[in-house]
This record gives sequence, structure tokens and C-alpha cells, in this order.
Amino acid sequence: MQMPTLVESLQETLSMSQVTTNITVRELHSKDESYHAPVTPEVVVYPYNAQDVSEIKQIAKQFSRPVYPFGLGSSLEGLVIPTEDGISIDFSEMNRIIEVKEQDLLVKVQPGVTRTQLNKELKKYGLFFSVDPGADATIGGMAATNASGTSSVRYGIMRDQVRDIEVVLADGSIIHTGNLAAKSSSGYNLNGLFIGSEGTLGSFTEITLEVHGIPEHIVAGRAVFPTIDNAVEAAVSTLHAGVPIARCELVDEPSVKKTNEFSDTDYPVQPTLFLEFHGNEAGLNQDLAFMKEIVKEQGCEEIEFEQDNAARNKLWEARHNLAYAYIHGAPGKKMMTTDVCVPISELAGAIRHARKVVDDSMFEGGIAGHVGDGNYHIILMFDRNSEEEIQAAAKLNEEVVKYALSVGGTCTGEHGVGLGKQKYQAEEHGESLFVMKKIKEAFDPENRLNPFKLVQFKE
Amino acid sequence: MQMPTLVESLQETLSMSQVTTNITVRELHSKDESYHAPVTPEVVVYPYNAQDVSEIKQIAKQFSRPVYPFGLGSSLEGLVIPTEDGISIDFSEMNRIIEVKEQDLLVKVQPGVTRTQLNKELKKYGLFFSVDPGADATIGGMAATNASGTSSVRYGIMRDQVRDIEVVLADGSIIHTGNLAAKSSSGYNLNGLFIGSEGTLGSFTEITLEVHGIPEHIVAGRAVFPTIDNAVEAAVSTLHAGVPIARCELVDEPSVKKTNEFSDTDYPVQPTLFLEFHGNEAGLNQDLAFMKEIVKEQGCEEIEFEQDNAARNKLWEARHNLAYAYIHGAPGKKMMTTDVCVPISELAGAIRHARKVVDDSMFEGGIAGHVGDGNYHIILMFDRNSEEEIQAAAKLNEEVVKYALSVGGTCTGEHGVGLGKQKYQAEEHGESLFVMKKIKEAFDPENRLNPFKLVQFKE
Repeated sequence: MQMPTLVESLQETLSMSQVTTNITVRELHSKDESYHAPVTPEVVVYPYNAQDVSEIKQIAKQFSRPVYPFGLGSSLEGLVIPTEDGISIDFSEMNRIIEVKEQDLLVKVQPGVTRTQLNKELKKYGLFFSVDPGADATIGGMAATNASGTSSVRYGIMRDQVRDIEVVLADGSIIHTGNLAAKSSSGYNLNGLFIGSEGTLGSFTEITLEVHGIPEHIVAGRAVFPTIDNAVEAAVSTLHAGVPIARCELVDEPSVKKTNEFSDTDYPVQPTLFLEFHGNEAGLNQDLAFMKEIVKEQGCEEIEFEQDNAARNKLWEARHNLAYAYIHGAPGKKMMTTDVCVPISELAGAIRHARKVVDDSMFEGGIAGHVGDGNYHIILMFDRNSEEEIQAAAKLNEEVVKYALSVGGTCTGEHGVGLGKQKYQAEEHGESLFVMKKIKEAFDPENRLNPFKLVQFKE
Repeated sequence: MQMPTLVESLQETLSMSQVTTNITVRELHSKDESYHAPVTPEVVVYPYNAQDVSEIKQIAKQFSRPVYPFGLGSSLEGLVIPTEDGISIDFSEMNRIIEVKEQDLLVKVQPGVTRTQLNKELKKYGLFFSVDPGADATIGGMAATNASGTSSVRYGIMRDQVRDIEVVLADGSIIHTGNLAAKSSSGYNLNGLFIGSEGTLGSFTEITLEVHGIPEHIVAGRAVFPTIDNAVEAAVSTLHAGVPIARCELVDEPSVKKTNEFSDTDYPVQPTLFLEFHGNEAGLNQDLAFMKEIVKEQGCEEIEFEQDNAARNKLWEARHNLAYAYIHGAPGKKMMTTDVCVPISELAGAIRHARKVVDDSMFEGGIAGHVGDGNYHIILMFDRNSEEEIQAAAKLNEEVVKYALSVGGTCTGEHGVGLGKQKYQAEEHGESLFVMKKIKEAFDPENRLNPFKLVQFKE
């Protein structure tokens, strides 16, 4: 009698329809929105629940195969791309919103739930989930990446929102990382450790998130400045003044131009802050008056506030579509976005440096960023078939990272390490990298969980 | 030639004045503010810097001795009490505020800096540090415990404020856990892991904290209710309404009585919420009007707002002195405070349960709590020389913990595990406890860092 193969074992334990080796499906799971080269997984599986994931892990162990998590493939750093022959675990069938705990301002979801799916449901309760990375990513992917985005200046990053995760470990055992209380000093902080671990310590099968009441009053605005420096200074001053700003996005001239082309807007082609404020009406009126003073000091020539829903949505849609505007404008090319974050005091200098790096390169490139956090991106399009362009894009990315690290920042503010930022881990973390590697070994001694990512570098 | 002893080695490597075996000093380091039995350390050392701490760790390794961290001894769960013959590391000589990075809203301190010392310095810059556990604890101790307190409902807990820690590991190596950027998706979240680790993974020698601008407008208030249920419901409704409440403290009838006796106040002896709001003037006026409606629905008979500094300080001093009021009122007895935290939806039931547990016990006891977080305490005084009282207090504590765990809460909201909550770790964390033990082993394979605390239980 022959021993069953990996695929047969998976099919037997799960079901035929949950396991596929179809090449089209496998190729879909070979890549994400990043610029990294695709690698096709051996097999793709679709678990329905934690038990399925546990069994996949046990079979993976039996066959000595690695597993790779897959949400919607919106990673910008190759977090889901296989590094060896192995199993891609696609969580799209685990997309139930399990429970809205209205009184506790909590929601429990499966990892395949997307951000817009969640907010559509929460709206019925007058609630919303605050983390907004732009892409309609899955909650599992956002948790694994420690995503953030436009609203984290006010509501925090992904790590701040997660109260409990059900995790399937390397050996198939199932644990919970937290509880439902708003705070705890019990045990070690597993919640925080798993958030941002990029599937290298375990797979998430249930996530309990904090949600917020939809604010009484929301005002969005656009403020236009003569220079990027002025725009950055205005953002920093606003933060220091304690104005409760909910979003604070910088878009530079080339990016405003791209936005106008793609989103059919006619914003002045100048450095612009896209802003949003949440609060009560009286409070916001006082804040906005103060805000006008602040931006005026920085030579702001035009500030417009939008209070109605449609105008506000249009503004944020235009901002969110910026990446797609670049992609749309360069057919056949691949997008690369840098993703460093620096201390606020270093932001103006860092963005000046970024502009110089782009100008000195062979690329057109836009700069956009969540400047309230000190996190900014260069967006550029390059030809993945040109060795010269690949090298030039990598060099640009490296210059930006080195600058950020030299001023006390980080190589990735929100996109994660994946395949793109491993080479900077030693420089960024120093001796801590050894500690991180020990943690990886403690959780995954056989190195089967999304191996050669994050703190591991395949030479 | 004789080999030097432990004490001789320490004295030789540090200096004579940094090492003592004086029995009075050692006894001071045998205990904290908790009810746990004192255990005297073999020797007390006073490091001046990270290098000293590193050398202490290396000597501890050489002599196979455990080390115990000591800040100001304000722990309520025996976090600093030795469990074996070993070295108490007193951080009081490491009490420098190293740098206020005003532009970045950051401050870098040594671990022995106290909360009030820090806030006195920050005030010069119009800034404040938000975590306020009541006691004038050291920042190192607060970080090791993941302390929180009255203002965490608005500004978050200790874990939310720490951007970087310099840590000396078991082998004496020195690492940094983070960077100066407001967010990062790089590497594993060591910051979060070390916060609340109670000295079991390493010793903190420098801590970089987020600070806030002093709010434009602060209003404090007292709202008096017919029943505890009403007070809790009012707190929950306020949170749900999105009113930006900065502190929300429940004090029950017996505790108001104790406060009046100790603090020379004449507050009505009824369940009371002590409140504080931060914002701009126009916004707060709208919020306070709304707040009045909310508390009226819960039968609030008296709500008073204080806008001037002196009245506000008096109110919070009275609240903070509650623990001392109990201690003062029971000379010779020891205080025990329970410290569970439950989901907000379970808070009213939990506090009713707590009241019943106290009424059924042999103790008078007050209930107070940070009800915006679902964290509440029973404060009671017991005679540590009476086996009956010890047993009864332990039973009461256990009943409160079991209740909290049964409704999805945690055994400790803010005081930490230390010696008092180890026995509940298995019930609270389940399979996760094995993962936590693996982390401990990875960081401290020889079990010399505050051993038999947190996730380790000495039978």
C-alpha cells in the first residue's frame, strides 16, 4: 500500500473542494501587490475553521512543508509569497463576522473578513472600525502586518485595536492571546507579539477588535501650501497644539497631479494636506478656527472644509486611489512604495531628503504620507523586466531606509517586513534581532511558519 | 588564595558604596506595599547605569544567584519580594530625566524617576505624562507592571506610552526594544512584551515615553447617585456616547465615608463618580451639558463641576488618598486590594457581586475603580497575624477573580501578577501559559530574573 501524498492527506482530512493544485489558483497565490518576484505554492487550501487550520498544520509537520498565509494578496512587501515548496492557506472562506458586542465596543471576526465588509456591518450599530490602510485588506492580514493608515494618528494602529486572537500554533494547538477586558497586567503580552508577526509565529483564526462610536461630527478639509516644508510644519504644529486631528495626509505636487488625472478632481497642483477632524460640533468649530491660524502661518493659500458626507467621501476616495492612479498611469510596470517612519521632529528633513532621492533617480515618483505619525511613502513605477530599473528602485528604497534609521526611525511604518525589509533588520534592531530570532525558534522550532520572512533572511 | 564571595565581587566590580548587606536596608527591600510576607535579600545593590546592571547580571550568573528589581516598593502584589537568596537591584540611583524631546512629544528617563518628578519637569514644557496609578511609583516599576490608573480611559495604559526601552538581559547584554518613530511594523513587538514582564525577562535601564500637551481646558466633577448600579450605568452610557472623558472613578458609600474622615471633605455619603474631562472650552461645554442629561437619567442628585486648579486638585487628592484613608483607619493591619478587570457590559453585575462578597465576609471593605476600563478594586484591611483573617481575605480575593474570569475578564487589571495572581494564570491563560513559559525560558534559561513570579509558580 502506498502512503498518501501531501495533497491526498489534505483532501482526506479536509474535503476535496478545500484543497486545490489548479495552476491558475496556485499562481494567484504566488504573488501580492508588491514588486517581489512570484513563487508558486505547491497546493492551496481553504480552511473553514480553527480545527481545519490545526489539521493543516499537523499535515504540514508530517510532510515537513512550510505554510504561507493568504488573505486578499494586498501585501506591499511580499508577506504571502512562498519561499519554498509548501502550502498556501487561503482564509477567504473564513469570512464571518462572528459577533458584534455593542455594549463592549468589540467585534469578533474571522480573519478573512475585509475592512469594508466589517464597516458595513458595524454601521448598523452606529459603530466603525478605525484602521484604514487604503486597500480593502482582510482583518487577518492587517493584524499580521500591524497595518495602520490614515486614521492612526487619532485611533492608533492595528496593535492598539486587538483585544484577543485565537491562534493556531506550529504544532496545531489552539490558544487565545488575550481576553475581553479593556486592560490587563496578567501574563506576557501575547496580543502585541502576534500582531505584526506576519504569520511567522502562528495563524489567526479569530480576532476580537475594539470599535468606536461614529463621531457626532466629522469635518474633512484640504489645505494647500506653497512648499512641502510648509505643509509638514503645519501638520506638526497642529499635532503640538493638541488639535484632535483624525487624519492628516500629505500629498505632494506630482501626486496631486496624478490624483486629478485619475479621480477627475481639479485640486490645485501644489503640496496639500488632506485633513479630517472628529468631535462634537462646538468643539470642532473652535478647533477649525484655530487650525486656520496654524495653516495661515505656513502660507496656506486655500483651506476648504467639507462637512457633508458626499464631498468628504470624494476627498478620501481621491486620496485612497492615489496608488491606483500611479498604477493606472504606467501600464505594464510594477509599483514600489517606500514605507519608512521617522520621529516627527525629523519629518521635514526626511521628506526633503526623499524628494532629492527621487529627483536624482531615473523615476518620476510621488510622495504621500501619514504625516501625523511621521510615516511617508515614495510611490514609483518601475519595469520589473529591466535589471537597471530593478537596481535603481532598490537603491532608492535603500537610501530612504538608511536615512530613516539614521534619525531614529524604522524601515517600515506599516507595510511590514516580508521579503523587502529583511536586509535592514540587523541594522535596525541590532542585538535585539537575536532575541527576536529566539522568539521565532521558541514558537516555530522546525521553521515551517512563513519561513525566511521578518527576522529570518535567506541568503 | 580564596575566591571572592558574591558580595566582594559586587563591591569590587561596582564600588563599596553601591553594595550593602546592612540588615535595615535589606529588610526595606524584603517587602512592598502588598500584603505578601517579606523575604530578605542577601544583598542590595545600587547601579548607576546600564553597564553596572550588566555587570551585576554577570556576577549573578557566576554565583548562580537570582536578581530582584526594586523601584520604590509600591507594588501591591509582591513584585519586588525575593523568592530565594539573591540580589535586590535598587534603581533609586538611576533617577535622571535624560532628555525631553519636546518636538517629538517624547521623554527619555532612567527607571528610578518617579511619576511626580517627571511631571514636575514636563510642566516646564507645557507637557504631562498621562499614566497615574495613584502611588508615586517609579517609571521603571510602572513599566514592569504595565500600570495604568485613573487616566487610562482616555490616554491608555503604560504599554501604550512606551516607545523604546533599554534592557539588560540575563546574560548582561544590552538591547533596545523599539525606536523613536510613532509606529513600526518592523521585527517582533519587544516593547509590548517587556512592558508588564515584571523583571522576569530583563532589567530596564532607560525608557522612552510618549507625553502629551497639557489640555487647553480641564474640568473635574463629582456626580452622586442613589445606587452603585446607577453610577456604573452612567459611566457606561457616557463612554458609549463618545464623550471624551479623561477620568471616570467610582467610589462606593463606605469609601466616600473613609475619604471624608481622612481628607477632611464633606462629600455626600453615596455612590459617587469622580470625573474629569479634557478638551477645548467650547467642546467641553457641549460635552458637559450632554453629561448632565446622562447622569440625570440615572437619578443623579448632585453633579458639581470644578474648573479651577485648586478645587480640582483637592478632588483628585481625596480620591488618590483613599487607600491611605483605609490604612490610616486600621493601624497594625495590612491592606489587600483586589484588582480584576471585566468587559464593560459585565461591570454592573461584577460590582454587585463584589459588594455581596464583601458583605458576606468578615471585613468592612470599600469598592473603588476605574470604571471606564471595567477595572475595580475592593479595598480591605486585615490582620496578617491572624490565620483566620488571612484565609478569609484570600478567599474573598479568589471569589472576585473567579467571577471576573467567568465573564471574560482578567485576574489583574493593573497591579500585576507578582506573588498574588500566579495561581490564576493557568485558569486565565489556558494553553497560552505554556507559550508564555517558553518565552520565559528563551529569555532566562537559568531562571535568575525575578524567578517564581508571573508565569512561574513555586509550589
